[in-house]
Parts: sequence; structure tokens; C-alpha cells
Amino acid sequence: MFSRLNKSASMRSPLRLISNHIARSSVSARQTTSVVSPLATLSSSGIRVSWPEGGESHFHNIWLRDHCRCPRCLHQVTRQRLFDTFSIPDTIKPSNIDWDDQGLRIRWGESDHESNFRWPWLRSNSFTSQTPSQSIPIPSNKILWGKEIAQNPPTVSYQSVMQDGEEGIRKWLDYIDSHGFCYVTGVPVSPEKTEELAKMISHIRMTHWGGFWDFTADESRGDTAYSNLALRAHTDNTYYTEPSGLQMFHMLEFRGKGGESLLVDGFQAAKILKEKYPESYEILSTVRIPTHAAGDDGFLFQPTPNPGYPILNHGEGGELYQIRYNNDDRSTMRHLPYEQVEPFYTALKRWSAILTDVGSEYWRQLTPGTLVVFDNWRVLHGRAAFTGYRRLCGCYISWDDYQSRLKVARLKTNNKQVKDVI
Amino acid sequence: MFSRLNKSASMRSPLRLISNHIARSSVSARQTTSVVSPLATLSSSGIRVSWPEGGESHFHNIWLRDHCRCPRCLHQVTRQRLFDTFSIPDTIKPSNIDWDDQGLRIRWGESDHESNFRWPWLRSNSFTSQTPSQSIPIPSNKILWGKEIAQNPPTVSYQSVMQDGEEGIRKWLDYIDSHGFCYVTGVPVSPEKTEELAKMISHIRMTHWGGFWDFTADESRGDTAYSNLALRAHTDNTYYTEPSGLQMFHMLEFRGKGGESLLVDGFQAAKILKEKYPESYEILSTVRIPTHAAGDDGFLFQPTPNPGYPILNHGEGGELYQIRYNNDDRSTMRHLPYEQVEPFYTALKRWSAILTDVGSEYWRQLTPGTLVVFDNWRVLHGRAAFTGYRRLCGCYISWDDYQSRLKVARLKTNNKQVKDVI
Repeated sequence: MFSRLNKSASMRSPLRLISNHIARSSVSARQTTSVVSPLATLSSSGIRVSWPEGGESHFHNIWLRDHCRCPRCLHQVTRQRLFDTFSIPDTIKPSNIDWDDQGLRIRWGESDHESNFRWPWLRSNSFTSQTPSQSIPIPSNKILWGKEIAQNPPTVSYQSVMQDGEEGIRKWLDYIDSHGFCYVTGVPVSPEKTEELAKMISHIRMTHWGGFWDFTADESRGDTAYSNLALRAHTDNTYYTEPSGLQMFHMLEFRGKGGESLLVDGFQAAKILKEKYPESYEILSTVRIPTHAAGDDGFLFQPTPNPGYPILNHGEGGELYQIRYNNDDRSTMRHLPYEQVEPFYTALKRWSAILTDVGSEYWRQLTPGTLVVFDNWRVLHGRAAFTGYRRLCGCYISWDDYQSRLKVARLKTNNKQVKDVI
Repeated sequence: MFSRLNKSASMRSPLRLISNHIARSSVSARQTTSVVSPLATLSSSGIRVSWPEGGESHFHNIWLRDHCRCPRCLHQVTRQRLFDTFSIPDTIKPSNIDWDDQGLRIRWGESDHESNFRWPWLRSNSFTSQTPSQSIPIPSNKILWGKEIAQNPPTVSYQSVMQDGEEGIRKWLDYIDSHGFCYVTGVPVSPEKTEELAKMISHIRMTHWGGFWDFTADESRGDTAYSNLALRAHTDNTYYTEPSGLQMFHMLEFRGKGGESLLVDGFQAAKILKEKYPESYEILSTVRIPTHAAGDDGFLFQPTPNPGYPILNHGEGGELYQIRYNNDDRSTMRHLPYEQVEPFYTALKRWSAILTDVGSEYWRQLTPGTLVVFDNWRVLHGRAAFTGYRRLCGCYISWDDYQSRLKVARLKTNNKQVKDVI
């Protein structure tokens, strides 16, 4: 930015120079501005920008100084702040501003520093109010589904993931992002090759259950997952502060009956709950659920902070971003006031009824060679009871590692760099 | 519980039997109750318990049925729910209750099921209001400190950790819990032995920085940590959804000048901020800080949900449980309304001034053989700039893994079991 403006100085459109004095009073300066270029004026503590497409943004002087994009203030590779925020005088003001159709240049009064901001950066970083949404708070890029997804489930091939570079990864992770799950077909039936595939996303998340698993129903661990019992739709790791983001399962061998795998779109279920019973949606978005994992000697997991997290978790803007639900791992609800007991259990019952509705449940028998990866913050999983020998391998991947890989694949396949988005 | 009551039936004190009808009207039944035993009466939708030491608790019928502790309803090892919550009729009522000085027995009307609850369990799981504290919200077991901690820092020996079993682990982790850090002296100067020591707590947290590190200032990674620059007091991993819980450093070799290590008690700083500037404390407890790690090709980390977390994070009861602060990793504050800019930067400046006050800073030159472990959710760390060759090894451990190990060590050294607390 710095060098760009300097290099192109002779070529750029005539500068609009405004001193502190002129900016506050000069109407003529504003009138000469081209209609396609934004217009900047000084306010008592910041700079107002009128956008040619309409609307105005107001940037505070302290904010602008703190967000200077120059190489002395911001490391151009790590995007870490080099500038000392705490050296900004409370009364900081520009001594001069000027702009062209590319961006805004600020000369700071109490130092010799100059900051340059490109208009698109200012536009995209102008304050936008995050009013909690009153409508269904599910991000618009999510494709919700019920049992009909069985007819055309998101699927990529092993070959595409392993050999198509960033395009192959992006396609795979885009499906997980939009649908909450994706199959990979044609996977070699071996734990080693399955692990190799997982590592195309990221290192594997190590937990007290281990890293990469290869297990049978041998009751070796203190959890019903290691039994042959039916498991209702649930998310994993509700007892951790941060549940795993992705879960991968590859059925290596099965000689027996039953054991079909169940997937349920938790976002779709949340949408239905909100539409039918908004008061129950509110309860499951606010009542915290204490949980625990305590079945193995030497471990006792409970999330922080006490008493845990709600089933439906929302961001500041009201968007649903995470479902945490395993009724079996729910601990004593000692923090529930008497008068909330009935509304809470009613809400839980409605939620369970939606999850177990035949229209919500997507059943499929996993077979060797076809692996499933799902978003454990959105899609609930379960299985039918089974008899016989069933060998499954798989792993967890952390949410952040998955999200990082997805962002990078999108940047690379769009020929963008980190500095374009941070 | 089930078997205890059955076995001791002939020995226990005379049962107080109350039918639905009698319970609602019988005053005489209440009057015959011993003063040292709690007293139970049926309400329209639950059971009221009057405690001999004073006070009353009201347990809802649905809640009681859902929390049955018997082996058919609750797995006695994993403490997972076996009972189907959703089979509870909305109108569930006891057909009979009786109690003795040990506990309460409920016979459920619409099934043949019986639930037994010990009085201490009911007492400790009766609803207690979690009114946010108006005072300094720091858990009472924390020992806050400033630079004077240099005179007597919490320290354990390598031998005690490796050879004293659960006692050695408990002593070590208790110090980290109370003070936020602890030294271990007499550690063999080798990365292998250091890693072995870390694994006395838990497996190591793998991140995009790797697992166990052994590094020098070679700028090999896109972060100032891998330089020889001074680093102000900060917490690590503000760019992850869940920052690491513990961090361990062992200086293996240093030939040069500078490089002293800095620790600052973030809880002490928060306490000072709250006392001096409560309005700034409130701002840093609510304004979310977007952060990122973007210095390495192939990675782009930002916490979920957008736009991140406040610097000071509190639980439902108002207790401070986590500090996330690295001003260098702070991203564009595009979500800050204009009128919040000045109060926010003022709060940040006050926070920084407290952290960098000479009374807050505890400096020490690490030396080979003495390792430091600190709570990255509480204690900020930094270092002075240095010249020369400096080789450090260490790792992260997840918060949950650390907390689990601490809980288990406390249980074992107190001869308790998981079922006593879950």
C-alpha cells in the first residue's frame, strides 16, 4: 500500500488535500469530488467517509492509527501488530488527509507517520451493526437436509482428494461446510491409508480416547461407543470444553447384523424447533448442560466454565454455530430452578422428537472403502445395535484445524493470499 | 444405593411412609420426624425437603425421575445415563415416598420403578441460584501475586513429580491451580526427559506449531516467538477457539545476553482493573477481540464464533475463568461502533498499564534444569530481547487434560472415587 501510492503518485488523479481547518469548513472541497470516488471529511475525533454508492462510515482517529497497514506498523507476512497501540495519544488527530480513487492517506499530527488505507479495505472494515437475527439463525451457505439426502449424498472420490491438490481438498471440505458431511469413495481398506487421508486436512486431534482409532466392540474403554448397543443421535465430546470439529469413520470389516449408521442434520432440527416452538428454542439456547466423561480410570472430564454449554450455541450476531447434545452424558442439572424444570424437559422432549422423526433420520450401512466425515458441531450421529464382528477406524480433527484448511484451500483455488482477507 | 437400602432394611430407623393422599394433608406425619433427619412432603409437582439445619429444597418429579441413581438408570462406572429421559410422562408422580436418616425412597406411580437418593446427594444437588457476583469475581482458591512472588515462587522437585505417585502430581498441579505457575527443579537437561515429565500430566497438545517443541531463534516459523525480539506479556493461542491450558518451557542452552522470562498474574491484574476502573473491566469483559494466526503458508487461524472472545471471560456465575490477550495478534476491530472506540482503547490502555507496572512483572532468567509450567488461561508470559544462542524446549497441554489430571490426583489422594463427585 505504502509503496503502491508512492510509486503511482505521478499517475494518480489529482489529490484532494484537506487541512484540519479546511476540512471542517470547506464545502467547495466536497463539491469538486468526483461522483465515483468516496469523499472524506474530518470530524472532531475522526474521519467521515461518504461512499459513492450511498451511505457514510465514521472512522475514529484512534482506531485508524491503531489499524495502520504499513510495514512498520503491521508485519506483512504474519499480519501481527508491530505498532505500539499504547503510544497513541488520546488526542491524536490527522494534520492532513488526502485521497484519490484508490484510497485515503493520513498524515498524523503528533508524529511524522503516514497511514494509507485502500477504499475497499475501509469499506469492508467499516462498522456494521450485529443485531441478533430474529429469523432462523442459520448461516445462508448451509444446505439443510432430512432423510431425502440418501438419494444424493455429498460424495467425493479418494483419487480426487489425494491427487487434485487444493481443488480436491476444497471440493471435499466445501461439501462438509455446506452439508455437514461428505463420503469419500474408493478408499483403500486399511487404517494406514485412512489416516493418510485424514492428514490431508490436518494433524489428528489427540484426546483421552487416543489419536487415530482402530477399534471393535470390545468394551475396552469406559464408554458405550465401545459396546454393541444402539446409540441415539448425538454429538461427541460434549464433556470437553471444545468438542472435536470433524469426525471420520471408516468401516474396515463387518460380519454380522445391524449396525447401520445414522446421521441427523442438527441445523435442520434446530430450524424446525425454532419455527414450531420458539420458546423451547430459546430455552435450549440458554440453559447450560453439565456433562462429563468419567468411565476410564485416570480421567474425569467436564467442560469449563461450569456448568457447561447450552445445546444450541450462537455467536454475537445470533448465528447458530454449534450443537452439543448427548443426553446420556448429561450430568446432574443442579443449577436448574424449580420453575424451569418443566419448560426445560418439554423443550428437550420436543428437540428429541424432531431428531428422532423418521423424516430427520438418514440411515446408511457403511461399507469398507467408503468413508464418512462429518461436522461434529452440526451433524448428530448414531448407530443401530449390532451382532457379530465390526471393525471401525477413524479419528477426530479439531474445528480450528479444519476451518484453517478450508480457508486456505479457498484462498489458493481463488488465487488469493492471506493479506487479502486479514 | 439400591443395594445399600435393601441390605440394611432391617437395621435402619423406622420408615416414614407417606402416600400421595397422606403427604398433602398429614401434619402428624411431619411432627413425628426426628429433628436431625430431613423431612419430605409432596407438592403438586414435586417433593419438598426441609433440612434439619434449616432451609428447604424443592425437587421436581420430572427432575427426580431423570436423575435416578440406580444401576438400571445410570451406568455405575461411566456415569452415563441409561434411562430414557423421553419416556417420562409429563404427569409423573410418586405413588409412595418414604425416608430414613440415610435418604429418600420414591416409588413411581406409572411404573414399578423405585428411586433412592441419599440426603447428602440431594443436598449438594439442590438448586442454588448463580447470581453474578458483584465483588471481585476471582475464585477464592486462587493466590494472587505481583513481583514479590520472586522471593518464594511455587516450586517442586523433579524427583517428587516422577517418584511420589499421585501425591507428587497433586502437589505440582495444586500449585499451578493456586498460583498459575510452578517451577520444577532438578530436571535432566534433555528434551526427551522434559517431554516425559510433561506426559506425567497428559498427552501433549498438538497444534499447527507442532507437538513437543525444541527450538531456537531461527525465524523458522511465521511468528515473533521464533525471533529474538522482546515479547510483551501475553497469553498464547488467542487465535484458537480454545487456547492451550498449560504451557511448559525448559531452557536447554543459552549463550548470550538478555532473554529473561516474564510472568504476570492476569487474575491479579484483572482484580486491580476491576477495583480501579470497573467500567473498563466491563468493557474488556464484553467487547470481543478478533484475532488471527496467519504467518505460515497453509494456515489461517481465527476463533469461532466470529468475532472472537473478550479479553476477560466469565462463567454463568460471574467468575473469571480465562484471560485471552495478545495485542499483536488482534485483527481489525470492524465490529466496534464509533462511540465505543474511545472507551475501548482507554480500557485497553489501562489494562496494559497494569500489566506493565513494575509491581506486576515477575522477571527471572530461566536456566537449564529448572523448568516452568504456567496456566495460559491466567498467567501472561513474555521475554526480554536477547542476543546469542538460546535453545528452548516445551509444549502445550490442553486445559481439559490438565483439569482432568488435577481432579483425578485430588480424588486419589483423598481416597475418593469418581462416583463420589459425579
